[in-house]
Amino acid sequence: MPKAVVLLSGGLDSATVLALASRQGYDCHALSIDYGQRHRAELDAAANVARALGAAEHKTVSIDLTAFGGSALTDAAIAVPTGGVQKQGIPVTYVPARNTIMLSLALAWAEVLGAQDLFFGANAVDYSGYPDCRPEYMRAFERLANLATKAAVEGRRLTLHTPIIAMSKAQIIDEGLKLGVDYGLTVSCYQADAQGRACGVCDSCRLRRAGFEAAGVADPTRYAAAPA
Amino acid sequence: MPKAVVLLSGGLDSATVLALASRQGYDCHALSIDYGQRHRAELDAAANVARALGAAEHKTVSIDLTAFGGSALTDAAIAVPTGGVQKQGIPVTYVPARNTIMLSLALAWAEVLGAQDLFFGANAVDYSGYPDCRPEYMRAFERLANLATKAAVEGRRLTLHTPIIAMSKAQIIDEGLKLGVDYGLTVSCYQADAQGRACGVCDSCRLRRAGFEAAGVADPTRYAAAPA
Repeated sequence: MPKAVVLLSGGLDSATVLALASRQGYDCHALSIDYGQRHRAELDAAANVARALGAAEHKTVSIDLTAFGGSALTDAAIAVPTGGVQKQGIPVTYVPARNTIMLSLALAWAEVLGAQDLFFGANAVDYSGYPDCRPEYMRAFERLANLATKAAVEGRRLTLHTPIIAMSKAQIIDEGLKLGVDYGLTVSCYQADAQGRACGVCDSCRLRRAGFEAAGVADPTRYAAAPA
Repeated sequence: MPKAVVLLSGGLDSATVLALASRQGYDCHALSIDYGQRHRAELDAAANVARALGAAEHKTVSIDLTAFGGSALTDAAIAVPTGGVQKQGIPVTYVPARNTIMLSLALAWAEVLGAQDLFFGANAVDYSGYPDCRPEYMRAFERLANLATKAAVEGRRLTLHTPIIAMSKAQIIDEGLKLGVDYGLTVSCYQADAQGRACGVCDSCRLRRAGFEAAGVADPTRYAAAPA
């Protein structure tokens, strides 16, 4: 069974990607990154999701991006916006170079494991404001990865899979439910409380809730208060 | 004065690059990465070098790559080779994806600082065995960086400077001495002891010593024992 490294945040998107990678026959090594994010409950969720979906292994690696700050997710002084999803520009929840850092760590693990496949739950449809979620960014990372490693030099090419990049949130949910993903285990909220309960009003909560509505299925999210 | 992020390992090459960036008029923010390397003395050396060369700031960020292992520098079970510099293939001191991880972190800090210049002391001449020290890798990283960030989307391009990539070790030393670098502060040895004293026999020590010889200057390195 070929090995794959799957970046697993603990949210809805990456849980779906893990299920997709498993269904495709990969032996999945799930990687979570503790980067000092405000919503630390997602890391506990990731461990539960990895277990529920039968990952071969789950590692959490720490890198303190609060040392740099510059995002609502890594600087306590910048509030998470709750007034409705921003339509233009790049939201303050964007974390500088986060996806590049996470993909680099996944690449390191893939090389040590001898894995040639890397799965990443980026999505460019519902949330196109993040520069490092775009398809052209993904292609550039894959190109870099195939110059960066000993594996690449020796002819073992790495493929970066982003199977949900062009799906709507409702399509992602629909796909995941067919694969048996329990979305009640996942945490998407940018400011989830220590028990993993969602605020219901940040952009991530709004997009997630709208996704369940559009998919026509019950929203299993545990909210701290009833959503507005 | 434009800001730059300079990756500073504490070794000879990156110290020279910091001096070059300063001379070019950049306000230098030096970044060291504690990745669990065997030669931890280089991190103390980095702090001393940053101070001596007048860096505006010096940060050390930790990311535990021993969680993955796969290198003599991050896995205590893999010995550092001491029998002479390997002529072919990629040495076991190669750390999977290390430069990609370090450059990603530098990119994150650059974006938060509003810096558009990143300096990296990679060298492809004396030590061409590392895939992530090649010029084509550097170009691919720069390309990625210019798709990855909010800064890039908003038109503030990032330049990755690798000023010593094509220099011999002797040329690097010659350049650094002209700029007043005190190489006695730097630690290059892959298995330096806690006091920063070099083994004299690992590849890094051998290349460094040969560099001082070729440059015709005294080697200021502190050795744990007299070099062979």
